[in-house]
Amino acid sequence: MTEDNDNTVYIGSKPAMSYVLAVVTQFNDGQDQVHIKARGKAISTAVDVAEIVRNRFIEEAAVEDIDIGTDTIDTDEGDEMNLSSIHIDLAK
Amino acid sequence: MTEDNDNTVYIGSKPAMSYVLAVVTQFNDGQDQVHIKARGKAISTAVDVAEIVRNRFIEEAAVEDIDIGTDTIDTDEGDEMNLSSIHIDLAK
Repeated sequence: MTEDNDNTVYIGSKPAMSYVLAVVTQFNDGQDQVHIKARGKAISTAVDVAEIVRNRFIEEAAVEDIDIGTDTIDTDEGDEMNLSSIHIDLAK
Repeated sequence: MTEDNDNTVYIGSKPAMSYVLAVVTQFNDGQDQVHIKARGKAISTAVDVAEIVRNRFIEEAAVEDIDIGTDTIDTDEGDEMNLSSIHIDLAK
């Protein structure tokens, strides 16, 4: 799953363009706002996705808010690991 | 160079902790605000650096502003390439 019903697109390890398509689809389906969320190494891709959407596809979309944070993840070995996260809200 | 005189720390490909040290040093030298800047894949590291500084070292530091953008770079082959960028301002 790269997206769910509440206009959020979760960024994973696929090329940025797959997620760009997901975001553009949400806007074209009538959403005024799309949330882009990522953790760890995918944070760079999340920024690429937001920039590509607003520079090349939905020029009236603007960055409304950006938040960064830290999520604590349980590893398979039973340890805890901190992972940075980003939320980017695009709105038109 | 990972930092210059105007309290900016540029994030490259070294481990996050090298840049954390640079940011903490700036605060300890009396700066009230430190700018963290990164492009491309280093964007994830920039978020790690901001989070590690404020969670583990300078707890009174807060994220004051985050900007994302696109820089156009000239490649060695004479082409132009777009690269995403992030600026994170930490202040205490």
